[in-house]
Order: sequence, then structure tokens, then C-alpha cells
Amino acid sequence: MTQSRQLHLGAILEGVGTDQHAWRDPALPSNASISIDWYIEQARLAEAAKFDLVFIVDSPFITPDTAPHFLNRLEPLTLLSALAVATSHIGLVGTLTTSYWEPYNVARQFGSLDHISKGRAGWNVVTTGLEGAAGNYGRDAHFPHAERYARAREFVDVVQGLWDSYEDDAFVADKAAGVFLEKTKQHRLDHKGQFFSVAGPLALSRSPQGQPVIFQAGDSTQGRDLGAAIADGTFTIAADLATGQAYYADLKARAAALGRNPDHIKVLPGLSPILADSDAEAQAIVRAQHEALDFGKLLVQLGRAFNYHDFAQYDPDAPFPDVSGLSLNSYKGHAERIVATARAEGLSLRQTAWRFGQWRSPFVGSPETVADEIERWFVGRAADGFNLRVTRPGEFALFRERVVPILQKRGLFRTDYAGQTLRSHLGVPVPPHRHAQPALAEAAE
Amino acid sequence: MTQSRQLHLGAILEGVGTDQHAWRDPALPSNASISIDWYIEQARLAEAAKFDLVFIVDSPFITPDTAPHFLNRLEPLTLLSALAVATSHIGLVGTLTTSYWEPYNVARQFGSLDHISKGRAGWNVVTTGLEGAAGNYGRDAHFPHAERYARAREFVDVVQGLWDSYEDDAFVADKAAGVFLEKTKQHRLDHKGQFFSVAGPLALSRSPQGQPVIFQAGDSTQGRDLGAAIADGTFTIAADLATGQAYYADLKARAAALGRNPDHIKVLPGLSPILADSDAEAQAIVRAQHEALDFGKLLVQLGRAFNYHDFAQYDPDAPFPDVSGLSLNSYKGHAERIVATARAEGLSLRQTAWRFGQWRSPFVGSPETVADEIERWFVGRAADGFNLRVTRPGEFALFRERVVPILQKRGLFRTDYAGQTLRSHLGVPVPPHRHAQPALAEAAE
Repeated sequence: MTQSRQLHLGAILEGVGTDQHAWRDPALPSNASISIDWYIEQARLAEAAKFDLVFIVDSPFITPDTAPHFLNRLEPLTLLSALAVATSHIGLVGTLTTSYWEPYNVARQFGSLDHISKGRAGWNVVTTGLEGAAGNYGRDAHFPHAERYARAREFVDVVQGLWDSYEDDAFVADKAAGVFLEKTKQHRLDHKGQFFSVAGPLALSRSPQGQPVIFQAGDSTQGRDLGAAIADGTFTIAADLATGQAYYADLKARAAALGRNPDHIKVLPGLSPILADSDAEAQAIVRAQHEALDFGKLLVQLGRAFNYHDFAQYDPDAPFPDVSGLSLNSYKGHAERIVATARAEGLSLRQTAWRFGQWRSPFVGSPETVADEIERWFVGRAADGFNLRVTRPGEFALFRERVVPILQKRGLFRTDYAGQTLRSHLGVPVPPHRHAQPALAEAAE
Repeated sequence: MTQSRQLHLGAILEGVGTDQHAWRDPALPSNASISIDWYIEQARLAEAAKFDLVFIVDSPFITPDTAPHFLNRLEPLTLLSALAVATSHIGLVGTLTTSYWEPYNVARQFGSLDHISKGRAGWNVVTTGLEGAAGNYGRDAHFPHAERYARAREFVDVVQGLWDSYEDDAFVADKAAGVFLEKTKQHRLDHKGQFFSVAGPLALSRSPQGQPVIFQAGDSTQGRDLGAAIADGTFTIAADLATGQAYYADLKARAAALGRNPDHIKVLPGLSPILADSDAEAQAIVRAQHEALDFGKLLVQLGRAFNYHDFAQYDPDAPFPDVSGLSLNSYKGHAERIVATARAEGLSLRQTAWRFGQWRSPFVGSPETVADEIERWFVGRAADGFNLRVTRPGEFALFRERVVPILQKRGLFRTDYAGQTLRSHLGVPVPPHRHAQPALAEAAE
């Protein structure tokens, strides 16, 4: 492949949104999070703009105070399967936790999505941060952080093993001779590990992209190690260019240390632009959003990283409280960064909530300004692309119609799809079949 | 409702089929079982013929000798979600086992399918007959028969409880006032039972049909009790009219004994017609199919009801062997009927395999003859309708184009859909919300 490095774009479809006020926008249907019509419309718009993928966030636990989108929303695999037949090219990526599913069922469902979409499925592997999820699955307590990641690693190994249950040419389907399956090309897995025992085989052949694409989104050391080992791409939160560059270098180094080609793991930070016709208008939007925020809800959002710890109990203007007694089992990487920043900068609880209880975008301005910043991150090796998360309905149109053409003109982003599969869009290879002949396996690499 | 009793029709979509030779028909694509295009085409044909539903069979265990369709097929929930957006009226029913899933995940996925399809989802509750499934889910042995059914009952209770997590008017979505959810109308489940502990709430509101429709297919005493208690409909195997009538009367009596309206549980036997232009031609097809059968494969199929017991070890012409030492944990009701029949009629193993190792249809003949037989079962209270399973591709067309018009002309079957939901097609009521005000709950009944 001599093609120059290309930017990748995902669109997070988040219905009525996870911000306090996004759902109140008159242009957004109140039922967007459960409306298949809304999702189909958004996915087709993203496909028309040649995005690599749409992305469905998920979580298996809610409370009455959960953000609007999470309160009432379609489940990712059923939703993505519906989108598969309403679109033709765009990748379809969904989050699913390894903590509360059976690997056999996950292998079947993502494998089926890959067939239904003709090679466009992607699985964002998470371990679930919220401890309350345990109560929905018959457990007294959530798995500890280290165990979650060890389970996740083995879980993905099992699922990938099941996806190779049949060699690519197993189904002869010779109607004249009456031979449907070449039985020697069906393989049991017979996995017996620390956490899972799964015999196989899976009742599903390989898809046009061999196996669904694997994404990973955890930011702790264990999360990065997992991503470096198993992922074709990672979704990250990057607050500024320097943080993004540090993560990018660290992740690619971890992948290389494991013998992987670092170009085959794509780093896609979240991108929440504040876009307007001019830089001044965009800055005015940021100020207005800031003023509309409810401090109580900011504290709830801050607490989410600490397993919904109740920060309202503290004096907001005293220094950020000592939370060293809390187990950081939830969003560990994120929570540790909040504590470290609050201490290093001597922030009060109020200042910490304003800093971390909302997303502060580094991408604010006119389409030209935002495109410049995207290019700076891309060229500066802080990102291989971005996962777009819009918080105002009109912003998605502005991004597609004004920012994407600038990126295309600069030769950074495709003007049409070159292939039909998500692996093709991302430029990550089809994994060779584990039971294929050595010569064939080498040829496929 | 003063409408006269109407026949219900389902179409089992089984890809390349579960018979020995069906897949060899030149008209059937070899990849039908994993081709979303094939399923969409079939579902649209069934919808054009005004069928109540399409039905997806399932099983979580295969061996190299498993029937062609089961070897390599799409998973039901992902498949049905794709069909939901490729159709507009037809019901979408899938099999899923309560033995190897988490109730929280099942509630989310069938609930989401119900939203995606705008009220057309149905769940065929099974407990899994094949003991080998245990090995795919980390268990040394399958659950014993009685425990499977006790688990199933509690599992469905939990799922239905989760489907009522929100009252129908919980989401206010008042943009001006800034109130998205009326928090008092979100309900935790806090279920703690013998097998499951599930806190809830589920992150999903009720759908246009309140809750997905529940089907049940087990034929043992425990299976019938489960169906009578929880099901809106049952799928059965009926070898002849008398057997069908006995099952029908028994199931309706069990439902009535539990205080249910027996009209609200629909009995749908499988219907595998052998259709041709004339009765003589149909009989000739039966003879030809019979002659083409491989006795070894018949023995495998017979053994499936006995957990893949190897019947090839016995003298085929000696009396049906003593299998009383075998645990009848698999398809218990079916296996017991085979043994009882073989003993009562003094059948040899060979005769038993020919009788039960293949499906012998009571619906053989011209369209007029088959329509007569359907009417006889329907009027004779052996069936409220049928689940059509074709074994030759051309037969589906014959049934839609030749049999359905006769049934319509006789006033037995709809000429158009009267509603948009599966509950509407079947004539089974929307379950009132368990937290609704008493006056409202009564009004909804």
C-alpha cells in the first residue's frame, strides 16, 4: 500500500444527547434515542459524507439522574443490524461489555452483524465502569478493575477463536455430489481458561472482512495494554494536543512492543466541535453554554467517574476533597486524571466540576479554524482520525457541509469509498484464518 | 371484539433447510441461511401474503453432522432487527433460550426490536434441548429438565418486569420547562428470586404493543404449564388431527385454570405441506422424497431427540431398543412420544426411524385438498393457525398463490392487515402496565 496516510472519521449517534440541555433543541426529536427513523437518517447522512463509521455508545446501568440519552435508548446490536440494511458502505460499531455477556452469544451476534452488513461490523470492547451494573446481573459487586481487564482479554480471545470456527472454503455446497460441508474444515475451539470454558464450534462462517473490527476505549494502563494487544482502533478522550500526542505515542509503542505494526491500530479521539460561521460566534456559543449549566448536574456528571460519588456533600469552594478512600474501580484512568489535575493546580471542587463535569472542546471556531485544528492533530500524530460527537443538531450538518470539504480539498479525507468493508475504510488487514495453511496465512498478511 | 375467529399464519424462515436434501434444490441459494438478501425477500413475500409473522428457529449447539441450516446461520435477534426495517407490518418472532442468557440483556434486545419494528417483536421462549450447549457456556452439564423450566418461568417474569421499567407517560420531554423524565414513573424491579437477582430499571420505554409477544414451544408437561402461564401463543408439532385436538384442549384448559382467557393464547402447529397441482402429483412427491432418504441420516435425526444418542449401534430390524437408561433431558416430550409409540405399535428401530426421523406431513395434496385440511384443523379446534415450514423453495409460492386465496375466499384468513402490531394481527391484548393506576389498568383490559 503506497497510499498516503488518510484521516478517519466516525460519527457518534447519541440520540437526545448526554449533555444537560442538548435534548431541548427544537430541531431534535424528543424520542431520537429510541427512534429507528432518526438513526437511519443520521447514518445515511454520515455515509453520504463518506465517514468511516457510525458509533453507538452503551452502558448497562441507569439511575433516575442518568443523562437523557442513556435513560431510554435502543440496544446497540439490534440497532446496528437495522442500520446495516438501511446503509451500504459505512462501518457499524457498537459498544458491548465483556463483564456481563457470554462470549458464545457475543461471537454469534457480532458475527451475524458482520454478515448482515456484508463486512462492516465493529465491536467496541469495554469492561463497564459503573459498579451498579453488577445489580442487573445477579452479582453483589462489580468485578475489580484488574480482573475486568483480564476477563476482557480472555473474552476477546474466545470470541475471535469462535469466529474462526470454519475455514474460508469449508462450505463446498456441491449440489450434484450432495456435499454441503467439508467436515474437516469445521473446528472446535475447546477453550478452557481462567474465566471461560467454551467448546464451539460457532454456527457461523467468516464474513467478507474475515472478522469484525475490534475497538477499545479504556484509558487506564490495563486499558491501553488491552487495546495495544487486541484492537484495530481505539476511542479516546483527548483534552488537548499534548495529551493526545502522549497517548498516541504510548499506544503505538505498546502495540509495537507486542510485535504488531503500529499503523494497524488507529487512534480516534473524540471530537466535539463548537462550530459557527465565525470564530467569534463559536466563542459566544461556548460562553452561552457555560452560563446555562446547572452546577448540581455538573457535580453529578463529575461523580460519574467516581461511581456516582455524591460530591454535593462537600463545600464547593474548599479544595477538591480527599477521595483517596474511594475505590477507583469505575472509570479509573479518567478519575485518576481528575484527582491529579485538581491537586497539581490546587483547584476547588467548584473549579474541578467546571473543568471536568462538562466536555471542553479544543475544537472551537469557524469551519476553517476547526479544520486547521484537525489537521494539526492529525499531522502532529495525536490522532489517526476522530469520532465526531455533536451536541447541537445543526452542528452535524455544519461539519459535513463545511468542514469535510476543506479536509477533502487538503487531501486528508476520502471523496469516495474505495471498498465495501470497515477494514477497507480503516486500512487495517483482514486477519488470516488461524487454521489456514501456512503459505496461505503468509500471503494474507 | 365481535369479529369472527380468524386463522393465523406464520412462515418459518429456515434458509437451506433442515432436511437432508432441501438445500440441493437448484432454486435455493446455497448461502440462504446467512444471506440477509434471501431473508428479506422471503419476509416481504410473507408480508405481501398478509401472514401474521415470520419465525426464526434457533439452537446454541452444533456438531459436524448437524442439519445444513443449523451449521451456518444468522443469529435471530440481529436478523430480525434487519428485517424490521425491510418490512412494515409482519410480526418478527425469534427463538432464544433462557438457559444461557442474562435476563437484562434479553429484555433490552427484544425490547429494542419491538421499538425498531414499531410493535412487531415476538420471543419464542425455549430452554434448549441439546445437552452439548452446556459446553459452549462454561458448564459441565446442561440444566436438568425441571430446573430448566423453573428457570425459564422466573427468567420471563424478570424480563417482563424490566419491560415495565417506565410507565407509558414517563417521558414528559417538556423542552420549555426543561423536564425530560418524570422520575417517579421510572421503576426499579429489585427482583431477588431462586435463580436471578436483577435490580433494574431497564433503559427502555414501552413500545406500541406494550411488550413483545411471548411464544413457547415445549411439549412436555412442564412445557405446557409454562406456555399456559406466560405465552400469547404456542408452536407445536401435530402429527395428526386427533393429537392436535388433544393438545389444543389441554393447553386451553391449563390456561383457563390459571384464570386466563383461553382465546388469548394462540395454538399454532407446524405445517409442512406437500403441495402440487393435483393430489396424485403430491403423493408422488412424498414417495420420491421417501426413496431419497439416507437411513443413516434418519438415525442421526431420530437420535437428536435423545441428545444425539447413537442409534447406529443397534440392529435396525430388532424391536426399538430399550433406552430407559438414557436421561430424557433433551426434547423430553418428543422423545417420550417416540418411545411410547414404538412400544405400543411394536415397531422395529428401522420402522421408528422412518416414522420419526423425518417429518410426515398430514397436509399432502392439491391446494384445495390442503386448504380443506387446514380448515378441518381450524374448525375442529386443533389449531388457531399454523406455522408454515416449506421444504422445497417452490412450495412457498404455491402456498401463497394457491392456498391462501382459498382460505381468504372462505373468510378464514385476512385479505389485509387491520393493524400495525403483532398483537393486533394475533388478537392478543396489550398487557396493562404493572404500575399503572387501577382505573387505567382495568380500562386497558
